[in-house]
Amino acid sequence: MLIRPADDADDAAIWRVLEPTVRAGETLMLPPQMDQAAAISYWRQPNHHAFVLEESSDVLGTYYLRANQQGHGSHVANCGYATAAWAAGRGIARAMCLYSLEQARALGFAAMQFNCVVASNERAVGLWRSCGFEVVGRVPDTFRHPELGYVDTLVMYRRL
Amino acid sequence: MLIRPADDADDAAIWRVLEPTVRAGETLMLPPQMDQAAAISYWRQPNHHAFVLEESSDVLGTYYLRANQQGHGSHVANCGYATAAWAAGRGIARAMCLYSLEQARALGFAAMQFNCVVASNERAVGLWRSCGFEVVGRVPDTFRHPELGYVDTLVMYRRL
Repeated sequence: MLIRPADDADDAAIWRVLEPTVRAGETLMLPPQMDQAAAISYWRQPNHHAFVLEESSDVLGTYYLRANQQGHGSHVANCGYATAAWAAGRGIARAMCLYSLEQARALGFAAMQFNCVVASNERAVGLWRSCGFEVVGRVPDTFRHPELGYVDTLVMYRRL
Repeated sequence: MLIRPADDADDAAIWRVLEPTVRAGETLMLPPQMDQAAAISYWRQPNHHAFVLEESSDVLGTYYLRANQQGHGSHVANCGYATAAWAAGRGIARAMCLYSLEQARALGFAAMQFNCVVASNERAVGLWRSCGFEVVGRVPDTFRHPELGYVDTLVMYRRL
């Protein structure tokens, strides 16, 4: 597995990873009907550092790393991750998270915060916990899950 | 007091309200050295509905109202408020908050969430509580206060 910065040539591969997750609408705060151009504009926006995880030149995961806030909140990092559906269960998300924590530390961030982890996404919640994150907030009914209806979102945090 | 949508002609007046708060760097997640153009680009960005509160044609406060998230999180509103330093203590922030809650309800939002209320800003925390908000999260040391050092930020929430 290799993790490297994304560039324009990766847009189609990033979209192949993102599209099923965006369409499912169960975990990301993005419109399920969003097209490639809109998704890439979001994922690779100017203040996001975007990365891809590849194996044998196949992109199996992608994430962005950014400052969660401007100004006097800029010492806290934030990331968003997506794993290819066809590579689930192989530790891709964990590898990306652990690597991004190292990157954030190297960039001088003091902590990492996830603003809205969908509480019904138990796999992600468990993974982030195992990567050292704690739940520091729970916001009621802030996500409309297509099958479960309104579910809570979690604020998760760890120091670096 | 009149609250109305902001337009380009209000930019200078909005900046007169925002600048002392931005420069103080004690409450907003914006760079203290930010200039008018950057501040207005942020405050009146395309997905923000910006408003001004005026009295006798003087702008005494401003706020924006937006969806806090896209996609399946878009039923939750978010606002940012600023009151003119010279009009403090006159209920400007309360008037803007109560009006924005009505607006958010009218627009179909189901709840309002504040993502990062600086915990040392006790006046704001008390005001939001008195407007029906609860603290649903506390994120450690996420704000570098120029006098107090690292302070927590609060996630506050209320249903509409």
